[in-house]
Amino acid sequence: MTTGEVGTISPEECWVLLEDESFGRLAYRLVDEVHIVPLDYVTSGRSIYLRTQAGNKLLAAALSSDVALEIDWRGEHGAWSVVVRGRLRLLEAAEHPLEVPAARPWVTDAASEVVELVPEVVEGRRFSWS
Amino acid sequence: MTTGEVGTISPEECWVLLEDESFGRLAYRLVDEVHIVPLDYVTSGRSIYLRTQAGNKLLAAALSSDVALEIDWRGEHGAWSVVVRGRLRLLEAAEHPLEVPAARPWVTDAASEVVELVPEVVEGRRFSWS
Repeated sequence: MTTGEVGTISPEECWVLLEDESFGRLAYRLVDEVHIVPLDYVTSGRSIYLRTQAGNKLLAAALSSDVALEIDWRGEHGAWSVVVRGRLRLLEAAEHPLEVPAARPWVTDAASEVVELVPEVVEGRRFSWS
Repeated sequence: MTTGEVGTISPEECWVLLEDESFGRLAYRLVDEVHIVPLDYVTSGRSIYLRTQAGNKLLAAALSSDVALEIDWRGEHGAWSVVVRGRLRLLEAAEHPLEVPAARPWVTDAASEVVELVPEVVEGRRFSWS
């Protein structure tokens, strides 16, 4: 039997991890379905910014529901995960806080929009085992 | 501007990737909220098996809604992602198809249950950019 330890990552440390990382997965609802897509993001202040294709079906769905963005790391004897839950907000061009990279891997043309994930809950957990 | 290419990964190849990997993220609904947790899994045949703590709140929620399991890889010039969407089914001990490892990192004691993710949709996408 595996012994394991679970610890909470403070919100401060969650943001350090979010700032160090740039690749996560966004989960959102589409009616009764749950979808999850990988994407690139950037942080600025205490928000998260994504670039998505204009008219994207994902964007339309995600704008009308709560979403969760997850980043993680898993090694041989430990792992951590940070989840940001909140709502998406479509930004006007003038609002872009910084150069948001094309959200590889899911954007392939220039017709894109920038979306802010306004965090409501930021939680992290760290795990270790032998 | 980045140029990128997107390709579809066949279901056959998705299963090869799922069999090679053992760590993914499960997204599920809890009323209006979307949650996402990292977990270990094993494959057998064309199903996915997870071990979770008995009485787990996640399990209760996930059993009543569609879920999505995602695995991915991201490199400097490419990435791929495979998503399995379906429903969870709590297994009886006699049904366990194989030794399912304790689902590190989120199980820390012996009181656990095995859950099958019965796939309804298996989709993969591959991305490359320069």
